[in-house]
Amino acid sequence: MKIRVHVTLKPGVLDPQGRATHHTLENMGFDGIEDVRCGRMIDLEVAPTVTDEQICDMCRKLLANTVIENFEIVRLDAETEAA
Amino acid sequence: MKIRVHVTLKPGVLDPQGRATHHTLENMGFDGIEDVRCGRMIDLEVAPTVTDEQICDMCRKLLANTVIENFEIVRLDAETEAA
Repeated sequence: MKIRVHVTLKPGVLDPQGRATHHTLENMGFDGIEDVRCGRMIDLEVAPTVTDEQICDMCRKLLANTVIENFEIVRLDAETEAA
Repeated sequence: MKIRVHVTLKPGVLDPQGRATHHTLENMGFDGIEDVRCGRMIDLEVAPTVTDEQICDMCRKLLANTVIENFEIVRLDAETEAA
């Protein structure tokens, strides 16, 4: 079972990496960029026995710093499950 | 227009961060984890005039190191466009 965890900074938390990327893109001549926010992505390959609650637990305890970050869990093969 | 860029390591490229995360999760007592791969995610807020080609250009020139990384561009408000 393939799971993708998106970890993003909470709104309002300063994102220096995003700022630097935004600034550099503009210096490279790319126009029309209004905002850039950087985050992390963790792809997990887990056994079917692993529950959503366990994955949430992994995120809360290790994968995301819940003080300044939000996380979102996406099942990558949800489409194939649904098909 | 909201765009999300997923940057992942190419298959076969060693992922020390993923390995360390996998190892730590197992030490914390989480079972059933077969593999962990870490990547990056960049959320871009761009004007509607920005073309897909320009976004690909941004990825090739700055956002991804195409020697060892793959990138995937996802329009976040594609659903709303389609609705």
